[in-house]
Amino acid sequence: MDKINLYKGERIDQLFSTDVKIIQNKDVFSYSIDSVLLSRFPKFPSKGLIVDLCSGNGAVGLFASTRTKAPIVEIEIQERLADMANRSIHLNQLDNQVRMIHADLKNLLDYVPRSGVDLILCNPPYFKDHETSIKNNSEYYLLARHEITTNLEEICQVSRHALKTNGRLALVHRPDRFLDIIDTLKKYNLAPKRVQFVYPKQTKEANLLLIEAIKDGSLSGFKILPPLFVHKENGDYTDEIHRIYFGKTEKDEKNNSNH
Amino acid sequence: MDKINLYKGERIDQLFSTDVKIIQNKDVFSYSIDSVLLSRFPKFPSKGLIVDLCSGNGAVGLFASTRTKAPIVEIEIQERLADMANRSIHLNQLDNQVRMIHADLKNLLDYVPRSGVDLILCNPPYFKDHETSIKNNSEYYLLARHEITTNLEEICQVSRHALKTNGRLALVHRPDRFLDIIDTLKKYNLAPKRVQFVYPKQTKEANLLLIEAIKDGSLSGFKILPPLFVHKENGDYTDEIHRIYFGKTEKDEKNNSNH
Repeated sequence: MDKINLYKGERIDQLFSTDVKIIQNKDVFSYSIDSVLLSRFPKFPSKGLIVDLCSGNGAVGLFASTRTKAPIVEIEIQERLADMANRSIHLNQLDNQVRMIHADLKNLLDYVPRSGVDLILCNPPYFKDHETSIKNNSEYYLLARHEITTNLEEICQVSRHALKTNGRLALVHRPDRFLDIIDTLKKYNLAPKRVQFVYPKQTKEANLLLIEAIKDGSLSGFKILPPLFVHKENGDYTDEIHRIYFGKTEKDEKNNSNH
Repeated sequence: MDKINLYKGERIDQLFSTDVKIIQNKDVFSYSIDSVLLSRFPKFPSKGLIVDLCSGNGAVGLFASTRTKAPIVEIEIQERLADMANRSIHLNQLDNQVRMIHADLKNLLDYVPRSGVDLILCNPPYFKDHETSIKNNSEYYLLARHEITTNLEEICQVSRHALKTNGRLALVHRPDRFLDIIDTLKKYNLAPKRVQFVYPKQTKEANLLLIEAIKDGSLSGFKILPPLFVHKENGDYTDEIHRIYFGKTEKDEKNNSNH
């Protein structure tokens, strides 16, 4: 393997449930649980074409590569993040499966055929541009978190054009935008089909949601999947999250270390 | 107390977490967990006017009477069910608080002032009229379960006219109608605000939802409340449901019986 350059402040993190290594920089961009959950949410086609929009440092597409042999196109508007992703793709020797494009997602059809995509994944900016109170200091995080360079409307519009009929869009987003999400999906003939709510603990309100919509699907048969809890009441990860991060539960680990 | 007539097939059931007794007849109508959960879902005004639509044998309004001193108007189109409710109201000596009206809910404004209601509860028919496969043999259940004499559209329209500005509509319904519910509420300026999904078990898809909407409310601030599970994996009621039905958990009961 060629040498991989790491720039100042960068480190290589590994998602232990996979062999995937990701170049991160906490001052620039690090993936969070949202990306991990999104990469596990949809049913992956075994072939066809997969696209990851708003891909940041490429985490979602890289994790997704462990779930399918289909080619994955990632698109990211921020050059520095796209460059981190490119080096991670190389680091994981995934150059034959995963391709990062540094571009504005509104130009997606310059890179993939119209009505030619089987599955689109997207971890978009969550906050409306005018929600300034929680804006982060870093320009990189600002663009990743706020609807400045793109928004839900554009993501749904682009997805509609890129997806095949019955192709699917899988989003991770926040519950306070849920009504908006439903409306915008429907506006672009993306029929919401499955939702999973993610709760920080069993006794708290949901703070994330995963949703899958089907292009030109019917509006019947909407399903609310079993809930996902991130932490137990004592603050530890739940078994399910532990398994997602480490490939096994804490109990499995203890049992193994006793042997 | 006057004598209460019980007709053939009728029995008196009690919700043990309250003192409320309900006249039921399994061939005609019995309340189910939906009514119990609905009666506990909204924040109850301490005064003002509460309405229970599609009240069946009156269970929701009777349970609700334990949570507020406000007058409660129940409305039910089926005479036999309204009569059962009337006798239950009398049996519980709630004649001063709960009033059952045998009428079509589209005529609600003949009985309550326009824009005069603080809270409307409704456990409506869940199934579209054309969903014939699961129609029940009994005419009573048929009307209670299928959108034959009323439907979501009419319930939202009537609620809009009856509610005060900022008055609330609380519904129990099924997740497969969720997109429909959101659309119809919004069409009548009832802003969805809080949803709780109810799961038969933690590992199953939701099979009920509770939703609260505010008349003329804003569409921001939508919340997904902590989930509610009915059964543990072993089939027993969860502590939460046990407490709702019996006013205490199974553990509390065992502790008490040990003393």
